[in-house]
Amino acid sequence: MSGRRKAVFVVMDGLGDRPTPELGGKTPLQVAKTPTLDRLAKEGQNALMDVIGPGITPGSDTAHLALFGYDPHDSYPGRGPLEVLGSGLESRPGDIAFRSNFASVDSKMVVTDRRAGRFFTPEEQAALQTAIDGIEIDDVRVRFLATVEHRGALVLRGPGLYPDITDVDPHEEGKKILVCKALSPESQKTADIVNKLMIEANLRMKDLPLNKDRKKRGKPSANAILLRGPGRHGEIPTLKDKYGIKAAVIAGGALYIGAAKYVGMEHVPVEGQTGTIDTNFHNIAMKAIECIKSDYDYIFVHIKATDNASHDGNAREKILAIERTDALVDEILKAVGDRIVIAVTGDHSSPLTIKEHSCDPVPLVLWADFMRPDSVERFSEIDAARGGLGTIRGMDVLPLLLGYSGYISKYGA
Amino acid sequence: MSGRRKAVFVVMDGLGDRPTPELGGKTPLQVAKTPTLDRLAKEGQNALMDVIGPGITPGSDTAHLALFGYDPHDSYPGRGPLEVLGSGLESRPGDIAFRSNFASVDSKMVVTDRRAGRFFTPEEQAALQTAIDGIEIDDVRVRFLATVEHRGALVLRGPGLYPDITDVDPHEEGKKILVCKALSPESQKTADIVNKLMIEANLRMKDLPLNKDRKKRGKPSANAILLRGPGRHGEIPTLKDKYGIKAAVIAGGALYIGAAKYVGMEHVPVEGQTGTIDTNFHNIAMKAIECIKSDYDYIFVHIKATDNASHDGNAREKILAIERTDALVDEILKAVGDRIVIAVTGDHSSPLTIKEHSCDPVPLVLWADFMRPDSVERFSEIDAARGGLGTIRGMDVLPLLLGYSGYISKYGA
Repeated sequence: MSGRRKAVFVVMDGLGDRPTPELGGKTPLQVAKTPTLDRLAKEGQNALMDVIGPGITPGSDTAHLALFGYDPHDSYPGRGPLEVLGSGLESRPGDIAFRSNFASVDSKMVVTDRRAGRFFTPEEQAALQTAIDGIEIDDVRVRFLATVEHRGALVLRGPGLYPDITDVDPHEEGKKILVCKALSPESQKTADIVNKLMIEANLRMKDLPLNKDRKKRGKPSANAILLRGPGRHGEIPTLKDKYGIKAAVIAGGALYIGAAKYVGMEHVPVEGQTGTIDTNFHNIAMKAIECIKSDYDYIFVHIKATDNASHDGNAREKILAIERTDALVDEILKAVGDRIVIAVTGDHSSPLTIKEHSCDPVPLVLWADFMRPDSVERFSEIDAARGGLGTIRGMDVLPLLLGYSGYISKYGA
Repeated sequence: MSGRRKAVFVVMDGLGDRPTPELGGKTPLQVAKTPTLDRLAKEGQNALMDVIGPGITPGSDTAHLALFGYDPHDSYPGRGPLEVLGSGLESRPGDIAFRSNFASVDSKMVVTDRRAGRFFTPEEQAALQTAIDGIEIDDVRVRFLATVEHRGALVLRGPGLYPDITDVDPHEEGKKILVCKALSPESQKTADIVNKLMIEANLRMKDLPLNKDRKKRGKPSANAILLRGPGRHGEIPTLKDKYGIKAAVIAGGALYIGAAKYVGMEHVPVEGQTGTIDTNFHNIAMKAIECIKSDYDYIFVHIKATDNASHDGNAREKILAIERTDALVDEILKAVGDRIVIAVTGDHSSPLTIKEHSCDPVPLVLWADFMRPDSVERFSEIDAARGGLGTIRGMDVLPLLLGYSGYISKYGA
């Protein structure tokens, strides 16, 4: 195809919804004023999309892998490695990666606060990070990065580590940190290291000056770490390997950045981008335009605010997040509409009525100024059911986007 | 997903049809008065379904395996084991199972009546069963159950049996019982046993008092058995293994009960349920409601009357069977509509104009009171083509039904 376009992919997290009583039986997307997305729907091609497959409720992690064109049944490494990659901590193939919490335990390792009070100063985070990062147990080295509030990313690096282990987090206060057990014989070493790490981290954390200071201020000690979501990732072919494209991720959450980096995208930070409705939609649009004008071929923009509103059951905020995304897309179209192919969709449904992920398919619109229209005139779950792309799978999106952008070579001669 | 629903699956056998001249070019489903199914179509999601795949005419056996979420290319054991499971005769992994007929042969084993007159008293069935059940040939034991009219279920149990053998039934009167041949080297033993069984059964049957009595009454002797549809089934993961659900089958034919038992459903008998238009639709509805209110998670209801009418080319009766099923679904909805997710469909098309199975896809409607509608307003083959579920496969039905009911865990985090 002559005249390649830039491929732009906008995902509103948890976008899909169901008829909502407080919205008169309509979905938030039907109620939201979305002149730009409606224009795309009218001029472009629409679909309902089963992100994983019919009846399957996607997690955010597996959903994004599918949307990036990877079969999660083959390539999903567990949530830990993706979050760790997104945090900025390096995670190499063979490492065991975890999400972690600072926590408070008593002298018998009974958890008294699963978040150790939740709030930490940057100095406290730095001191805790220094205490944990670099711990060595047998031939395994611990890498640790404090991220947001009580959260952190932790990696075990060493030979012969496998991730089939049980959780140490009792998920309830008043209970002891659990003994980590191997779920497969090859994971025994990992379980042993984790159990030793629980003790070693406690020894190194409990007498830190910051904890004495926290005690004085009536705050709980950060004297333990709780690990969850272990995973181990292999090398997978990147988008560059597969399509020769340079790809950018613009996202406000570690998981989405991590999943994108896992498939070889580069993270492009945006001033004021967060995971909530207060994120700076205008700055995101400006950064996306900048990437489109630079040498990136594929630009993935993730908007988290729709999902947060869904989990809170907040219809007003979900509608607002959709309308602000509509304006963001409008800014992109006005600046570079003739240079792009764009797809807008969600990674899964999160109906306001149930406040969690569901198996309902999500609407997708695919637009370029040269594309055939179908008979859909509005961007919504209901209208998309009549779309010309029919019912597609999440793994179909990347080929559609790159095919129309001109990045997929002719198959055959 | 919080708030699980019961999954209800109603299959009208041979439902799908083609434009029918005597119905003014409409299908029976278009002509039938189906206010309940139309309501489901209007409020729910519709699809046209290729039960096996585009252009493939399904058998009833393979169709049901697909509808239960099993790929028949991997899990179809042949019709024999399914019929045998449905008959009530025990069939274990490794057994070779057959459907059988009582037949009449002359002294040279030439078949003179393939059904031996077709009708038998219960006493005659019992005497014939006693003569055949328990026969031992080498290290193989024969299990036999007389079922309906001249029909029976037969199992060979012993080491090293495989089902790749030719038919003994000449399928024509005036011809000798055929020599059973092995179609693979490993099946030679089975072929030998079958050939010995033909002789041994004839020896045991020919002089039975019932045959002397039948002769006196001018009825043909039941002095041979014809076997067909050999199959051997392995262990397959049940619906309980796969989804943790307790499943019930409400059906009037051995094949459907057998296919359902094969995947781990429990057979729930219904007073007055048959395979014809005279089946007690009200009792079926009452039993389904009882199952929904009990601890069953998944309730499969099979209506055979639509298929019988199709094979007879009887448009009036097919329409009547559809209308009575509509009333049955109405009874279920009125009693427990807010506790279920329901799918209604057919297992294949059986057009009145050709009186046999065809490859035409079947309409499917999926409904729950929380579900998004699509733009379909009537339950029919023609309307379903615009359905929001698009064109789906038979194997998609179970995940859709269980996904919306809340029995499939989120994939990923």
